[in-house]
Amino acid sequence: MSRYWSDIVHRLVPYVPGEQPALAKPVKLNTNENPYPPSPRVLDAIRAELGEHAESLRRYPDPIAKRLRATVAAHHGLRADQVFVGNGSDEVLAHAFQALLKHDLPILFPDISYSFYPTYARLYDVQYRTVPLDAAFAIRIEDYAQPNGGVIFPNPNAPTGHALPLAQIEKLVAANANSVVIVDEAYVDFGAESAIALIDRYPNLLVVHTTSKSRSLAGMRVGFAFGHADLIDALNRVKDSFNSYPLDRLAQAAAVAAYEDVEWLRSTREHVMASRARLTASLAALGFEVVPSAANFVFARHPAHDAAAIGAKLREQEIFVRHFNAPRIDQHLRITIGTDDECDTLVAALKRIVK
Amino acid sequence: MSRYWSDIVHRLVPYVPGEQPALAKPVKLNTNENPYPPSPRVLDAIRAELGEHAESLRRYPDPIAKRLRATVAAHHGLRADQVFVGNGSDEVLAHAFQALLKHDLPILFPDISYSFYPTYARLYDVQYRTVPLDAAFAIRIEDYAQPNGGVIFPNPNAPTGHALPLAQIEKLVAANANSVVIVDEAYVDFGAESAIALIDRYPNLLVVHTTSKSRSLAGMRVGFAFGHADLIDALNRVKDSFNSYPLDRLAQAAAVAAYEDVEWLRSTREHVMASRARLTASLAALGFEVVPSAANFVFARHPAHDAAAIGAKLREQEIFVRHFNAPRIDQHLRITIGTDDECDTLVAALKRIVK
Repeated sequence: MSRYWSDIVHRLVPYVPGEQPALAKPVKLNTNENPYPPSPRVLDAIRAELGEHAESLRRYPDPIAKRLRATVAAHHGLRADQVFVGNGSDEVLAHAFQALLKHDLPILFPDISYSFYPTYARLYDVQYRTVPLDAAFAIRIEDYAQPNGGVIFPNPNAPTGHALPLAQIEKLVAANANSVVIVDEAYVDFGAESAIALIDRYPNLLVVHTTSKSRSLAGMRVGFAFGHADLIDALNRVKDSFNSYPLDRLAQAAAVAAYEDVEWLRSTREHVMASRARLTASLAALGFEVVPSAANFVFARHPAHDAAAIGAKLREQEIFVRHFNAPRIDQHLRITIGTDDECDTLVAALKRIVK
Repeated sequence: MSRYWSDIVHRLVPYVPGEQPALAKPVKLNTNENPYPPSPRVLDAIRAELGEHAESLRRYPDPIAKRLRATVAAHHGLRADQVFVGNGSDEVLAHAFQALLKHDLPILFPDISYSFYPTYARLYDVQYRTVPLDAAFAIRIEDYAQPNGGVIFPNPNAPTGHALPLAQIEKLVAANANSVVIVDEAYVDFGAESAIALIDRYPNLLVVHTTSKSRSLAGMRVGFAFGHADLIDALNRVKDSFNSYPLDRLAQAAAVAAYEDVEWLRSTREHVMASRARLTASLAALGFEVVPSAANFVFARHPAHDAAAIGAKLREQEIFVRHFNAPRIDQHLRITIGTDDECDTLVAALKRIVK
């Protein structure tokens, strides 16, 4: 607290990311990282960019990430002017809140959702109203048929893992022609349908992606927004009023290589999805109720054991999962899909806890 | 232009960074990059972080850059809680405008200064008033003795290269105890006195640094703010409401290594300063008036030749310098100090142009 702070700082409620334990070998299932490394081509691309003496690093990176945008646009069947690149999808979302969601009417998002959304809203003084998910943690699109300044939701949703079918998303986008609908698809590659297919028909649709999950590049901070060129233009105007060069040279090179290796993506995500089915079955066998997940995590509760207590006991064994102390979900744990070995370690520990 | 844009987007005037020519061997003296590569330790540190399979990249980076902040704090004789880290000093400055400069009174900065300042001010709806430099492009600190919501200026100033002595800065900071004074020291290592020495005595002082210039890491995007823990706290609250992980793993590793190699910094900046003296003399011999520079660039005009025309003719020869089409300085060129070879190529070309 200080008299030097701008007024807005006093009203902020900063986001708290999942813990990064400083242990040699934690079973780290708390921040939805991929259990597999990025494509080997990523390493080659970074080494090539570094050269013999890292001499390219003295030069600014490409401020508009031309090659990366072209690569990702081609991958998704889009034009480069339909692609925005940012320093992780968190930065992309922040710019979107400022550029596209600040209007007279409040924006809408689910009551159970990415907990960064209310934080962004406070940062830019964006009014918002939360819309309750149904009892099965599903979005009911008819609940969004109310005047609004924008709509944002993750699909699959976080932290539930529940996916909304594309036909439902299209109805929601079509019914909100006067405001921007942002579909935050951080986890889409693990089993949901992407709304990118709708972009050419709906000028009010923005789809946000990240390389942090399915492409194993959480450590490199690269995210995207896809949408009508007018929406991308707004994001670029904010970005160019904030930081000309948000992506360093190695991040751009790494992300290009990750998008070029389609086979690596296919293979690693299939592993994750198979492990998810296996973990879901093991948890169910221990009496957990598991929300059907289309993401690289599961959301589970045990009817006879307090979630925070389970989380604390796991932590004692250097197993980290995420617990949200929030209404409706404080009896759930969000568990990232690790390797089968990591999942087995978790299940063995849970067996001892709930026995 | 789009009905979906937030109001603020219509009012933005995005910053335009210097051109990044897509030529094999341009003589690129337009964005104040260092002509020498970063310390060899940077390459080693990045390789160590990558490991054999880049497996660490699947994991999020340290959101609070603990090791980097400790390294830089020790280097400057500060505590870690007096250090803020961002994605380049441009991001640091953006957060500072939002966190510390938005008050009822307008902020003050020089009429000739870093042209990003008015852009940030528009992004956050911060009122500002520019204060004219004197005829020799120097800041007169008595001109800042007026009610204000904050003061910001680069030292050495950009694009002039003129440095304000530390005693003058201290007077300015002391005279503005009710508002934050930000000293943007991107170029300080090339010959000015750092205001970091004043931090423990003035809770209203924020000093901003970057690894892009003297540490040859423009390609990696790492910047800092130094100040009282309360000011750093405000920046962290904004940062944690914007993007938890602004610096990727390789950028953090690179910056630590760059700060650890003090000898490399000393040697490369002495080369740059020697080349600056040599280039200044050559330009003077051709009839240019050169502002005495404490930065890695010089600001020069020729009384008989139009600056934009000189710039265009240089460009035809694949030599890039920066021209600002702005009042009072549209007859000047800002020329980055390159290697002696690059400076010689420039001088030879200028000789033909002004002969």
